[in-house]
Amino acid sequence: MVFDFDAPTNRLNTDSIRWDTFDQDKVLPLWVADMDFQSPPCVINALSKRIQEGIYGYTHGPSHFNQVIAQYLLDQYEWKVEPDWIVILPSVVSGLYTAVQQLTKTDEAVLIPNPVYHHLRLACTSSGRQFQEMRLELKDGRWILPSNELTSLVTNKTKLALFCNPQNPGSTVFTREELQTFGNFCLKNDLWICSDEIHAGLVLDESKKHIPLASISKEISEKTITLMSLNKTFNFPGIGLAWAVAENPLLRKAIQVGLHQTIAAPSLLAYTATMAAIEEGDPWRQELIQYLRGNRDLIHEKINAIKGLSIGKMEGSYLAWIDCTQLGHQNPYQALLDAGLATSPGNQFNRDQFVRLNFGTQRKRVNQALDIFQKAFT
Amino acid sequence: MVFDFDAPTNRLNTDSIRWDTFDQDKVLPLWVADMDFQSPPCVINALSKRIQEGIYGYTHGPSHFNQVIAQYLLDQYEWKVEPDWIVILPSVVSGLYTAVQQLTKTDEAVLIPNPVYHHLRLACTSSGRQFQEMRLELKDGRWILPSNELTSLVTNKTKLALFCNPQNPGSTVFTREELQTFGNFCLKNDLWICSDEIHAGLVLDESKKHIPLASISKEISEKTITLMSLNKTFNFPGIGLAWAVAENPLLRKAIQVGLHQTIAAPSLLAYTATMAAIEEGDPWRQELIQYLRGNRDLIHEKINAIKGLSIGKMEGSYLAWIDCTQLGHQNPYQALLDAGLATSPGNQFNRDQFVRLNFGTQRKRVNQALDIFQKAFT
Ligand SMILES: Cc1ncc(COP(=O)(O)O)c(C=O)c1O
Ligand SMILES: Cc1ncc(COP(=O)(O)O)c(C=O)c1O
Repeated sequence: MVFDFDAPTNRLNTDSIRWDTFDQDKVLPLWVADMDFQSPPCVINALSKRIQEGIYGYTHGPSHFNQVIAQYLLDQYEWKVEPDWIVILPSVVSGLYTAVQQLTKTDEAVLIPNPVYHHLRLACTSSGRQFQEMRLELKDGRWILPSNELTSLVTNKTKLALFCNPQNPGSTVFTREELQTFGNFCLKNDLWICSDEIHAGLVLDESKKHIPLASISKEISEKTITLMSLNKTFNFPGIGLAWAVAENPLLRKAIQVGLHQTIAAPSLLAYTATMAAIEEGDPWRQELIQYLRGNRDLIHEKINAIKGLSIGKMEGSYLAWIDCTQLGHQNPYQALLDAGLATSPGNQFNRDQFVRLNFGTQRKRVNQALDIFQKAFT
Repeated sequence: MVFDFDAPTNRLNTDSIRWDTFDQDKVLPLWVADMDFQSPPCVINALSKRIQEGIYGYTHGPSHFNQVIAQYLLDQYEWKVEPDWIVILPSVVSGLYTAVQQLTKTDEAVLIPNPVYHHLRLACTSSGRQFQEMRLELKDGRWILPSNELTSLVTNKTKLALFCNPQNPGSTVFTREELQTFGNFCLKNDLWICSDEIHAGLVLDESKKHIPLASISKEISEKTITLMSLNKTFNFPGIGLAWAVAENPLLRKAIQVGLHQTIAAPSLLAYTATMAAIEEGDPWRQELIQYLRGNRDLIHEKINAIKGLSIGKMEGSYLAWIDCTQLGHQNPYQALLDAGLATSPGNQFNRDQFVRLNFGTQRKRVNQALDIFQKAFT
């Protein structure tokens, strides 16, 4: 390994949301989804260099930025998109809210997975949209969509399905067949799709690849806005940007509403960081994935060994979705917090008897966290 | 002088909007409102240091950020605001669009100055709001509001007045009396006010101070959202942030609509830059003002010496508003562009026979620009 992911890092006194919320002496905070690793040296160096230039005036994206992204999507995912299908956004969350507000009217409804990253649900509730939850089911250790029952959720008000792949939480990296089935279901019911693929760069499962939903077929692509970003993979959400891909000009227009008006452009350094990550970040990403696999294996073994806890396959990203149902504990999140570990509580994802553990951290901290699980629940 | 504003800087190949739009070999680009100076060393150093930390995760504003801003407003403008009146925004433009969308209904109308920074007008037109223009008049070399005629612009649909102080373009730093008159007019007509004071840190006139409109009286404060930022003064709009001040909780609620939803938070480096500028930037700002005064004096003398051109006092900021009416030229903007100088065309501000010259640049470039005026119009 060229990069040392075991190297200790200190995020105290850096205004980190994850590290500042709890008492640092008492609680190991493994909740909000960012990592405790430095960004790759190529990103740090590019940012340093740009800062040294000293002038930070009004800046456009780098020339051919969309072309660079299109090439990246081709290289990484064998996904062929035209540069002008790409719209630059300040964040994925921004795109989620815009998609819901623009692709549905106030009295219309949205399908969302359950469990899912809370902003998919909040994007609906904050603008008064009804939503129906597509409850993922555990099958062969993977959280997948119940292909038969989805139709019963659709009413004549349902206009949009939100999707998350790799799934957060649950870690599923959906297969081509699963994507095909879901895409066809959406086509059949004439639903727009907004697919949040922010975790695409972090597929851990050795037998899987990330497949963009919109790459499945031209028909699905015409109905889909895909949201992506390198914020997660390269760990710079505090300076990041995101992009939407939409083949359909109507969707492209929808996702641009508010841009450069209420919605400010990304900071110029977000372009710098994203460009550096695309151009030089892949060796680091490969080693990061290796390291995260080590964390994954450890968690899989240790958590499943605790009576009352279980965890499925962790196919992607660094968020372990731990089922505490069999514990019969009233509030497993609180029990862990009392024992010195902050996870994300299951109710944030509408599943009370779960906790989500962020393992984008040093092995040493993962071991500490696992010790706390042990202490709290055995 | 400790800081060298004459030092040559090069913005080619930095994706600068101002420098990339025209052919660099043929056109001196003095249009978009950012400066050709480096940010102060304290800002560059703070950013470098933060970059070196290497982790750019989800970040909150510095602790007591609102308190630091409140203290700054007290120190700079003798304006007493409570920290919780302050709302952090990604940019002033974002705040302008939100204010118009939230403080008026689609069939209601807005008063805006003329001439004015184009986004005040676009914030109305983009959301289908009607607007009436308060035409500034030149009196004793200053562009001021016609106090008597404003009432005739108000209909029962008029709910909001946008204001810009220091004025862009026109450079007026409004006096206490003028602010009082305008504020009372708004109170009398029951108008909300959104006051864009982004140029507050750049008062050039030796006899003037920036007075926030909302500081005039409690009654005016209760009707006003003030928008401010250090983006302009310290020249980091490409990584910047802004803030709104609103004493009235209703207004505070309005200006927060969409934040952390469609509207992403500022980059963590924007907090770094803003904090450094507040804590250590003032000596640099004082010298910047000195330097800009030199540019102002030169422009005042040389432009008024060209037959057919005239310019009023330049009380604030670095944007010279040049009246070409007496030239009798069909398109003075184009004539200058053909001669090698890009200004901002008057029609961007709804005044065709004007051009706006950005003099936030090295004296040498100001002299080049003045030579081009000479060449084009004599
Ligand atoms: C599925 C998913 N989407 C979006 C985000 C947030 O992305 P951004 O910071 O670009 O808004 C996260 C962060 O945890 C996430 O897990
Ligand atoms: C009056 C005025 N308001 C707002 C802005 C833009 O501010 P921001 O970059 O924070 O959106 C400018 C920039 O020229 C301006 O002159």
